[in-house]
Amino acid sequence: MTEAPFHHVAIIGLGLLGGSVGLALAEYLPGVRTTGYDRAPATRARAAERALVGTVCATAAEAVAGADLVIFCVPPLAMDDAARDCSGALRPDAIVSDVGSSKVAVARALADALPEATIIPAHPVAGTENSGPDAGFAHLFKGRWCIITPADGEDPAKVERLAALWQALGARVEVMDAAHHDRVLAVTSHLPHLIAYTIVGTASDLEEVTQSEVIKYSAGGFRDFTRIAASDPTMWRDVFLSNKDAVLEMLQTFSEDLSELQKAIRKGDGDTLFEHFARTRAIRRSIIEQGQDDARPNFGRTE
Amino acid sequence: MTEAPFHHVAIIGLGLLGGSVGLALAEYLPGVRTTGYDRAPATRARAAERALVGTVCATAAEAVAGADLVIFCVPPLAMDDAARDCSGALRPDAIVSDVGSSKVAVARALADALPEATIIPAHPVAGTENSGPDAGFAHLFKGRWCIITPADGEDPAKVERLAALWQALGARVEVMDAAHHDRVLAVTSHLPHLIAYTIVGTASDLEEVTQSEVIKYSAGGFRDFTRIAASDPTMWRDVFLSNKDAVLEMLQTFSEDLSELQKAIRKGDGDTLFEHFARTRAIRRSIIEQGQDDARPNFGRTE
Repeated sequence: MTEAPFHHVAIIGLGLLGGSVGLALAEYLPGVRTTGYDRAPATRARAAERALVGTVCATAAEAVAGADLVIFCVPPLAMDDAARDCSGALRPDAIVSDVGSSKVAVARALADALPEATIIPAHPVAGTENSGPDAGFAHLFKGRWCIITPADGEDPAKVERLAALWQALGARVEVMDAAHHDRVLAVTSHLPHLIAYTIVGTASDLEEVTQSEVIKYSAGGFRDFTRIAASDPTMWRDVFLSNKDAVLEMLQTFSEDLSELQKAIRKGDGDTLFEHFARTRAIRRSIIEQGQDDARPNFGRTE
Repeated sequence: MTEAPFHHVAIIGLGLLGGSVGLALAEYLPGVRTTGYDRAPATRARAAERALVGTVCATAAEAVAGADLVIFCVPPLAMDDAARDCSGALRPDAIVSDVGSSKVAVARALADALPEATIIPAHPVAGTENSGPDAGFAHLFKGRWCIITPADGEDPAKVERLAALWQALGARVEVMDAAHHDRVLAVTSHLPHLIAYTIVGTASDLEEVTQSEVIKYSAGGFRDFTRIAASDPTMWRDVFLSNKDAVLEMLQTFSEDLSELQKAIRKGDGDTLFEHFARTRAIRRSIIEQGQDDARPNFGRTE
């Protein structure tokens, strides 16, 4: 193995993402020292039991002391407080990064809280519907993309070090402007979550169709949406609030498209429906070809 | 094994559903004779190669001759023609059924085409995103629900025979009014498909986010929708046209709910978002507890 890009990584926030980063470091870069902190004492205790990081610290300042990379793994709107907890405790040459799902707002929050620090935001596009200190696993990032969104004029060597770390954890790396990231993720992640949360709520609230019926017949398609809609509510509240403009814009486009299909159904316009439904097959083929989904029918589910 | 509820089952339409019924019969009720027919010669040829039924016939009339159960496994709007192909060839005491995803319209089409026949519609709520004669497999119905929607006053003994067949193939059976079926499935299956088709189309058409970006970062949630949106376009066109009223009504409710979340995002109302997102978790737990989905994170996908 070539030399690890960092010697000591501090992880602030030990849920699904933070825990997975810690476990992945232990697996793929075992020489790197890891320390971690979470505001919730129960999470710290569980993180220590699962050895999500080498040392679980009692304070954020203690966790980041001496680290050459600090990764904030908390929901977008918690970045500010988490970063302020570390103020004054960072090594002057440390790189500060994060795993937040929105990047413009998070970069601003980190820069405001840590004005002296070198901040290079990142977003590994990976996750599951689970959350908390029990949810993480070492291979979460394998084959997934990690988007790094450095500020204009950032030192390319530092960006490269961060990229090398993510590559060592199994990710493929792309560098992108933060605003563009936020628009891309609005459509590939945020809008799908919003829609899944909506339809699961709609189905739960119907009067004429019981919840028991919704559950029994969910294999007709609905169950797929419930997975996404089981994601961490705090995290997703923060994503929508911190990437508001891009989400609202994509939602507007989606609503217009939905109205068109609605009109085609109302008018009995089968050709429009068929044409639309036929062209959406190709994109799944590409996703599978590029290793971003399981090729087996029904995702290879056993139930 | 107790005696099979039927001696000879004819399957009209040899795609995902028809093929799976044939394979399931061979596996779970090997004493039952199966014959089959499909309008497409290539499908008949492939069905014979895969032995989806015992005998692939050259005409529908030949396939149904002597059968005590005929199951139409074609898209909803193709039921009419498929049934007319069999007119005059059915045994007088044969039970005619189907696997269509909408029930009021399909029951009417079958009754119009075969006015002398005993028609007991059914809908196994099971499937994958694949279609055609290569897509079927014997255990598709295992643990899934099959909804039978007999007409008022139907002979309970005949309904029971059909139920026994589906149970033998691994399904759990529920009997329901056809109109109620159509409303239940509008929310658990048809609306989810419509929304998935829409969002995949929306993402494909964006100018500022490239298709390549959509594919690369699809693991953020979008990829789940592409599975459903890869389903058979003919089948789904027919579902929306044949269950129009219920789909449009559920869509209306969904759109209202989406507008509420949209408003909460615009106003920065985090509490409303959090409350909504927190209550949608419970329904997934129930779906998993009732054996209707895989409990593993990300559906247990290997990619």
